[in-house]
Amino acid sequence: MAFANSQGNRVAIIGATGYGGLQLVRLLTDHPKFKITFLGGERTAGKKWNEVIPFINLSDDLTIEPCNPERISQEADYAFLSLPNGVASQLVPHLIKNDIKVIDLSADYRFKSLDMWKSVYSTEAEKYARDDYQLCNSAIYGLPEFFASEIFKSNLVSCPGCFPTASLLSLIPFLRQGLIDNDGLIIDAKSGSSGGGRNPKEHLLLSECSESIMPYGVIGHRHTREIEELSSFFADANINLQFTPHLVPMVRGILTTVYGRLRDPGLTAEDCTTVLQAFFKDKTFIDVLPVGTYPSTKWVKNTNKALISVQVDKRNGRIVIMCVIDNLLKGQAGQAVQCLNIMAGYDEDIYLPKTNFYP
Amino acid sequence: MAFANSQGNRVAIIGATGYGGLQLVRLLTDHPKFKITFLGGERTAGKKWNEVIPFINLSDDLTIEPCNPERISQEADYAFLSLPNGVASQLVPHLIKNDIKVIDLSADYRFKSLDMWKSVYSTEAEKYARDDYQLCNSAIYGLPEFFASEIFKSNLVSCPGCFPTASLLSLIPFLRQGLIDNDGLIIDAKSGSSGGGRNPKEHLLLSECSESIMPYGVIGHRHTREIEELSSFFADANINLQFTPHLVPMVRGILTTVYGRLRDPGLTAEDCTTVLQAFFKDKTFIDVLPVGTYPSTKWVKNTNKALISVQVDKRNGRIVIMCVIDNLLKGQAGQAVQCLNIMAGYDEDIYLPKTNFYP
Amino acid sequence: MAFANSQGNRVAIIGATGYGGLQLVRLLTDHPKFKITFLGGERTAGKKWNEVIPFINLSDDLTIEPCNPERISQEADYAFLSLPNGVASQLVPHLIKNDIKVIDLSADYRFKSLDMWKSVYSTEAEKYARDDYQLCNSAIYGLPEFFASEIFKSNLVSCPGCFPTASLLSLIPFLRQGLIDNDGLIIDAKSGSSGGGRNPKEHLLLSECSESIMPYGVIGHRHTREIEELSSFFADANINLQFTPHLVPMVRGILTTVYGRLRDPGLTAEDCTTVLQAFFKDKTFIDVLPVGTYPSTKWVKNTNKALISVQVDKRNGRIVIMCVIDNLLKGQAGQAVQCLNIMAGYDEDIYLPKTNFYP
Amino acid sequence: MAFANSQGNRVAIIGATGYGGLQLVRLLTDHPKFKITFLGGERTAGKKWNEVIPFINLSDDLTIEPCNPERISQEADYAFLSLPNGVASQLVPHLIKNDIKVIDLSADYRFKSLDMWKSVYSTEAEKYARDDYQLCNSAIYGLPEFFASEIFKSNLVSCPGCFPTASLLSLIPFLRQGLIDNDGLIIDAKSGSSGGGRNPKEHLLLSECSESIMPYGVIGHRHTREIEELSSFFADANINLQFTPHLVPMVRGILTTVYGRLRDPGLTAEDCTTVLQAFFKDKTFIDVLPVGTYPSTKWVKNTNKALISVQVDKRNGRIVIMCVIDNLLKGQAGQAVQCLNIMAGYDEDIYLPKTNFYP
Repeated sequence: MAFANSQGNRVAIIGATGYGGLQLVRLLTDHPKFKITFLGGERTAGKKWNEVIPFINLSDDLTIEPCNPERISQEADYAFLSLPNGVASQLVPHLIKNDIKVIDLSADYRFKSLDMWKSVYSTEAEKYARDDYQLCNSAIYGLPEFFASEIFKSNLVSCPGCFPTASLLSLIPFLRQGLIDNDGLIIDAKSGSSGGGRNPKEHLLLSECSESIMPYGVIGHRHTREIEELSSFFADANINLQFTPHLVPMVRGILTTVYGRLRDPGLTAEDCTTVLQAFFKDKTFIDVLPVGTYPSTKWVKNTNKALISVQVDKRNGRIVIMCVIDNLLKGQAGQAVQCLNIMAGYDEDIYLPKTNFYP
Repeated sequence: MAFANSQGNRVAIIGATGYGGLQLVRLLTDHPKFKITFLGGERTAGKKWNEVIPFINLSDDLTIEPCNPERISQEADYAFLSLPNGVASQLVPHLIKNDIKVIDLSADYRFKSLDMWKSVYSTEAEKYARDDYQLCNSAIYGLPEFFASEIFKSNLVSCPGCFPTASLLSLIPFLRQGLIDNDGLIIDAKSGSSGGGRNPKEHLLLSECSESIMPYGVIGHRHTREIEELSSFFADANINLQFTPHLVPMVRGILTTVYGRLRDPGLTAEDCTTVLQAFFKDKTFIDVLPVGTYPSTKWVKNTNKALISVQVDKRNGRIVIMCVIDNLLKGQAGQAVQCLNIMAGYDEDIYLPKTNFYP
Repeated sequence: MAFANSQGNRVAIIGATGYGGLQLVRLLTDHPKFKITFLGGERTAGKKWNEVIPFINLSDDLTIEPCNPERISQEADYAFLSLPNGVASQLVPHLIKNDIKVIDLSADYRFKSLDMWKSVYSTEAEKYARDDYQLCNSAIYGLPEFFASEIFKSNLVSCPGCFPTASLLSLIPFLRQGLIDNDGLIIDAKSGSSGGGRNPKEHLLLSECSESIMPYGVIGHRHTREIEELSSFFADANINLQFTPHLVPMVRGILTTVYGRLRDPGLTAEDCTTVLQAFFKDKTFIDVLPVGTYPSTKWVKNTNKALISVQVDKRNGRIVIMCVIDNLLKGQAGQAVQCLNIMAGYDEDIYLPKTNFYP
Repeated sequence: MAFANSQGNRVAIIGATGYGGLQLVRLLTDHPKFKITFLGGERTAGKKWNEVIPFINLSDDLTIEPCNPERISQEADYAFLSLPNGVASQLVPHLIKNDIKVIDLSADYRFKSLDMWKSVYSTEAEKYARDDYQLCNSAIYGLPEFFASEIFKSNLVSCPGCFPTASLLSLIPFLRQGLIDNDGLIIDAKSGSSGGGRNPKEHLLLSECSESIMPYGVIGHRHTREIEELSSFFADANINLQFTPHLVPMVRGILTTVYGRLRDPGLTAEDCTTVLQAFFKDKTFIDVLPVGTYPSTKWVKNTNKALISVQVDKRNGRIVIMCVIDNLLKGQAGQAVQCLNIMAGYDEDIYLPKTNFYP
């Protein structure tokens, strides 16, 4: 596969050996419209990529470098940042100043208000000084199904968290059209262990999380505020909801089971399915399943797809919306490349996986 | 360990080689107060137990027999039935007539009203003719934390489904005391694959359900009616709730995450924890966790325990109650032996496991 | 992706909804040089593909048909048979007579001698009458790293079993050059559950094989004879070896750990690695790892690659050769498409996956 | 359960919150002949046990203490050391001097020769100064099936590694009686992730080791020398063998598949099974399976049992011996308690689990 070599398509991946970074390298290696020209990492700086990651071979074996913004700016037109919360904010202003287009996978630019970020990510806010109010306000939330035209014009895209992607794809079609109550929304979310990252932690050991399911961050998980922020925007009302994540003994995948109440209890599951189909009819990565077919995370593993199914309890007008995504692709790196495609003027879906190898 | 040999303590296990049966054999093998005298099974009838199940050795190696009620009545004082729904109802009236005390693990006697059973289990109702209205009405629901004294006097105990046990342990303390709204209750349940039984089915293959989580039976799962029946009884009101089970890639365990709304939004998570602790203070198998400690199914695996944790969203008075059990023990066979202990006049907890080997 | 439409590139997949068939459909859907024109299946005949398999969408939604050789011959130029052993032999002679090129994934044509097949597959031989001695003798063993030029000229390619592929890639380089003893070879093989197929069997349930490893078919597994046949051919001597498969709680992947004795005990692990590198230097799908890097099945999952590593015990000249493949791709369907590429005159590696999404 | 309170039965567990320690606490909590009087740990020192480990409740909630030998000597009669290699050797001499009986789970006293230890555990030998030659020489290897009478008289028992236990139970019956060649022995071992301990490491994350099998420590794993040492002792000859461990995606369990050559190729699998049965006839924890029944690690999970099966290739006199144990019980803590029982003059099997809950 021949790479285009002209300037304008050079990509830097910062945080390349974490799970998010690995997906980005993998996706862009096969993407003929872009060329990886810089790989950034702290722990592995100075080593050759192929030595560190023997299972993703780069023909043009780059050396992993420290995350110096000047070097990145020389080498790349676009920079993906797959860094811990707070760390990204120390790099982004420099990159933007140097005219690099940035796609940030951290939470640093997900809130329009930096003060809100400082309140939700208070630990990080103490550690990393920030006053980039302007940047926060101008950053675009990288959920292309809702913000494609803004992403096209943006130089700073802030990619959603993995849970918000699945939750918002489920909620927004109904909230925007006023079909469900704003009050009493519940998101019961289930995630594989890769959402916890590659940095070793006791509770993510196979010995610990295999043969186990447990809730965590009950009430007050940081993604709650992110989901509420976007939900409120689309509902044009202040939304306050429950979000409970659970750790599932599998590597990849997120399932969100969303519970709400229909404003018109006469709507059927078929009606609601039609609503979703109409809403997402041009969206390549979103499939709405027929009533009674419930999605498995396995069906979307290693793809950039989301599958959504909806069911209604006729007795009481309660609605259940189920959505599955691969947390590392549609929930993270795949969606980021989808944004890159849009920013560079391509169709959003080029060179992104839509089908996997089953089982 | 010497077995008592006098009559009165002889136990038959029907459906002994399924997962429920295997737990019963295992539990009663180590129980010095009872003696397994009859093992019933269809597919394996005629074979020696130790040959069929090389990993649970019976010193007194019984031959597995067909489920003949006369033979069972000759050999046993108590009969556990671990049979498909509908099949149990064809045996129970004979056994009761012969003065055998029956502990049934199927759904056949879980509703006071046989007509309700016929409506919920309509497929089975078509296949198996039943008019044992009286027996249905007199059967006791085998949840000892709520019905111990009735179980003690009963000759027919109908053990709860695995999901209802965890759900009801979470809901009843709050419903009975009127602390939560009867309306809008949501149970998001997660189960390991052993809940689907030992009979091979495609969706239970490791190749299929490993690396996957998916909902099933959304709206209308049969356990919904069972949970509503008991909830309504304790709330003294007609309760209509949402119940959504999910299949998790693990062998054993159930987690229910229950969502409700506090009537007094001023109650804190600590208050609610105190309510639970008071409610279950004499119940050996129920542990209420401190606020902020969330239970893993792994903590109760291979035990008859339930762990419950509660959390409250101060912003809106929403309550989240999390409960874990081992679906095959506290959710099935362990609870059945707990009932047996009570029926025979022993302490409910004797010779039932309270701690496991971790991890 | 535009499909070529001229005759000569039409492909039939028989047994399309099993695990082998699913991989073939997935691979050929993305392959611009071929077009799937026939999908055969017994259980699902008459149904539309997209309805049966909601997670692999065919734009040209075919109806699954019974396996009628005349229909297949009308519709296709190439036929993949992913059928139970014995069944394939009832179809192949008809297809060959009709000038269809056949790639068979069963064991039916893996032995040059039909009598050998009848002795190894005696159960199937009793059930299915065969006298296609000529076809057996002319069929080519579909291991392209060794038989590419024969495959190019063949109209009947018999693909290896999953275990033989990994075993032979490890053994042949050393046997052919006489570097290891022919005697005393041991293959300790480990396979994921998908090797047992999609047809539900008790021992393949997640409840049974999760948290478990066990040997099976110890001494006398049918793949032993297949490995010996090919090993003997390349060693030009009669080879008699040990092969022990084990079932591992994972979905995809095979690891073979092969033990032998170097004829020259002075050879080092580095020397042996050089031997392998030289042997496979033009083979796109085979990577030889540096000494001390041991392969994980996870590194090749969802790819058509094989990774090989070799180690030597200096104390005694013992050699250990480790090889990993994806049992459903390089061990089955991917290798079959590799053969198809060769038969049709293309580079063997076009449109076959070489990198996966990790983890 | 009433604890005996007199001196002589007080037990200290050092390293109590690691996986080995957790098993010891669990086993001894239920053991009426002993009383846990001291819990040692570094990271958790100063905390109450029940707070740190909410899922194993100690009625007598001890505070975890630093590993001070004087404190241990005051509080206990027996001390279990579940510490990293090298660390144990810094404590043991003090404890022995104070007349504490020690059961050490590290490798520090597994070799009669301290110099051998220094050569095999060279990294640890550099870090921890040792000259306890005498203690090494007098320590008894804690494999009770072979050394019960020595263990009874010993004040320092050095428990085997998990791999050596399964390997030696397979090899010794044949080596001691000269039934197999001393040369060419191969042990292909498979272990669950808990063998890697509770300390978080990247390769033990569920995200990494799930859906994967890989070899590690190929040629030169430290357990090789330990197995050779004991094998040589029983064969009365210098034995040099291959040992290759593999990491399997499961929590608990070890399977060793041992390959050898019968001296008398006329022996059948039945003959060899008889040899094993005779050899282990009084050993409660060892079950020899009938020919053709192959053991799963799942069958012994959470028990102190070992299951052994043997098969022979009639064509060439090759023998395959398969053994499964729970790596944390018979492979570690269970075996240690078995030793404790013996040291204290009880039957070796009291209060140790022989059956599990399946599946």
